[in-house]
Amino acid sequence: MAGTVTEICRLAAACAPELARLDGATKNAALHAMADALLDSKGELVVANKEDVSTAEAQGTSRTLLDRLTLTPSRLEGMASGLRGVAAQDDPVGEIVAGRRRPNGLTIEEVRAPLGVIAVIYEARPNVTSDVAGLCLKSGNAAVLRGSSIALNSNVAIVDVLRSALESAGVPIDAVQLVPDASRASAEELMTAKGLVDLLVPRGGPALIGSIEDNATVPFIIDGDGNCHIYVDESADEAMATSIVVNAKTQRPSVCNALETLLVHEAKASAWLPKVLDDLATAGVEIRGDQRVIETWSRASAAAEDDWATEYLDLVLAVKVVRSLDAAVSHINEYGTANAEGIVTGDLSAARRFASEINAGSIFVNASTRFSDGAEFGYGAEIGISTQKLHARGPMGLRALTSTKFVVWGDGQIRT
Amino acid sequence: MAGTVTEICRLAAACAPELARLDGATKNAALHAMADALLDSKGELVVANKEDVSTAEAQGTSRTLLDRLTLTPSRLEGMASGLRGVAAQDDPVGEIVAGRRRPNGLTIEEVRAPLGVIAVIYEARPNVTSDVAGLCLKSGNAAVLRGSSIALNSNVAIVDVLRSALESAGVPIDAVQLVPDASRASAEELMTAKGLVDLLVPRGGPALIGSIEDNATVPFIIDGDGNCHIYVDESADEAMATSIVVNAKTQRPSVCNALETLLVHEAKASAWLPKVLDDLATAGVEIRGDQRVIETWSRASAAAEDDWATEYLDLVLAVKVVRSLDAAVSHINEYGTANAEGIVTGDLSAARRFASEINAGSIFVNASTRFSDGAEFGYGAEIGISTQKLHARGPMGLRALTSTKFVVWGDGQIRT
Repeated sequence: MAGTVTEICRLAAACAPELARLDGATKNAALHAMADALLDSKGELVVANKEDVSTAEAQGTSRTLLDRLTLTPSRLEGMASGLRGVAAQDDPVGEIVAGRRRPNGLTIEEVRAPLGVIAVIYEARPNVTSDVAGLCLKSGNAAVLRGSSIALNSNVAIVDVLRSALESAGVPIDAVQLVPDASRASAEELMTAKGLVDLLVPRGGPALIGSIEDNATVPFIIDGDGNCHIYVDESADEAMATSIVVNAKTQRPSVCNALETLLVHEAKASAWLPKVLDDLATAGVEIRGDQRVIETWSRASAAAEDDWATEYLDLVLAVKVVRSLDAAVSHINEYGTANAEGIVTGDLSAARRFASEINAGSIFVNASTRFSDGAEFGYGAEIGISTQKLHARGPMGLRALTSTKFVVWGDGQIRT
Repeated sequence: MAGTVTEICRLAAACAPELARLDGATKNAALHAMADALLDSKGELVVANKEDVSTAEAQGTSRTLLDRLTLTPSRLEGMASGLRGVAAQDDPVGEIVAGRRRPNGLTIEEVRAPLGVIAVIYEARPNVTSDVAGLCLKSGNAAVLRGSSIALNSNVAIVDVLRSALESAGVPIDAVQLVPDASRASAEELMTAKGLVDLLVPRGGPALIGSIEDNATVPFIIDGDGNCHIYVDESADEAMATSIVVNAKTQRPSVCNALETLLVHEAKASAWLPKVLDDLATAGVEIRGDQRVIETWSRASAAAEDDWATEYLDLVLAVKVVRSLDAAVSHINEYGTANAEGIVTGDLSAARRFASEINAGSIFVNASTRFSDGAEFGYGAEIGISTQKLHARGPMGLRALTSTKFVVWGDGQIRT
């Protein structure tokens, strides 16, 4: 696995045509072998991860980051089941997305094909390592993984296990490679590996995204922040609204689909809002509200302008009372990050307008934003959550890792 | 229509939400009004274009460019019928691309939505002006058009006609805007209109593409060169091969889907090749061949390494004899520009391998590469031909001008 980033990318590009031709049965067998290998190596993987976690703790790493970093037997089982979930998906390669016969007899097929080499730069979640490896293999692509330095021991151990499984399944081991040097320089080398990397997915904070936008010469898809909102409409069922808001804020606050700002229709401000804020406070959530919220619930502190734009990733919630659906839509389209946005409503017309007018990858009607997730969408896993509009938007599964090409079948047609 | 590029983009962005909400009937009525208006204004449009053509001729503009620039009544009829063809397409906005119900009862829809503001930088073909305007309107997007300076009179006249038609149909006229200053500075301002332009399609030569790759901060799709190949396989029907090769090279040599390099299996080198080269020479085509071609047909000049990488856009053809399908695939994947590539063969296995292994937007089996075109594909028109892999590949119709978002419908689901 040693070598410069460019050498790694060359090895990946060299095996890409073979990966593109693999049949689905071989790929599925390899995915199950990878899952089995993770379970068989549970003990050593947890040990390798403990080393990362101890170092991180000693460095004073935040609770949020430690939570993301930690590998438990149950998370390893989740990773294995993610790989099996990917195996259970239809093979995207060769899928005929659309097709038609033209008046001149030409038959036009739009056919899915792998992209080639997919690189992912990611933070301290070791499960991303196996998720990305599995999705890339199933979609016929080579994976180049550049994880965080604080997860390096974990990632080296996981990738070793996965590559052994690939070998046993007769798949080229260079289908999955880890960049062993988790430095800024290695990230920059990946961003500029033009002609070798067909897609780069940067999963990280604003500094990484900014650096990609400034420096990348390879195609990329932004997996950006999640400043997620839930709007509780005038017509919302109150028990449902409480359950969804508490779940979206507290079930796992450290992830990008957690709730960050609650917008409440003024009709719900007097009776319902104080109750849900009590529940959130009981769950340890700090509330920062606008003037109207503070009048209703005195334990709230005053939200500053910055709060509307902040992804806390922690037990903090910004809360604002709005006069209408329009005001909620405007606020979300101004401050949101086009990730996951939700509405709780009993009004079909409000739901349809919210779904149509909100600019986001995923829009949730009467469901927690926490479902914005490849596994929850039924993709087995995800390579990231796109917050841009081109190519893919929202949780990215297998299809986001392919391109389509037109194959036109004729019997001698010429253009006149 | 006056104003800086940024002002124009702001006007476009301001009307984008209204365009996104337009119903299909209104959009179709506007498209037919635009087509009618082009036909009603045929005389004045041809006059405006003559001014451009005369100036270009006086400047010693090439035959190729003059052909692209010239607007005839019949080309105007083609533009009108392109708009009607776009009207005849299904409305892409709101299309549910995929959907499923999850075990927890959530219903997930993947729904098409407009991108917002689409900018196109293009060369001297005035028909692009109406094609882009029509495709953007139908897909619910605002169009910002930045044509070539040598077509400025033509474009001003066309856009005036189209905007009057929009107004009469009750559609905001800022849905279609022309950048009145066709300078390098205006192109650069468009490339960097971050947050205002959702997609930029640069249709131009290597200098424009290089500038976009170096400078663009807005999302873009490369409409690149067309160094197109046809491979005549061992098993090709010879009459069909001749007809396709002559058509692809000579029917309109100035466009990107014209043939530039012919690859011939060695089994066809002795008997068939000299005959097709005679036919091509009769049609005025200059032949540049490898050693084997020159031995077979003495009028060929020797191809230099550069010839394999050249898009002539003129009556010149590079010709090479290859030993196998593999050699043809390797040559095309090395020198091709991922645009349109063809094979003439009677062998199904060869056809399937070629379709699967060639990296290109469109692959033609037993048909002329000249069909790589939005109208020929049944899209009414095209906004360009993508030579990249992400988002869209090959001729780009309405769907390429949309994004999808996930809309998830629940009845109170939370994540546990």
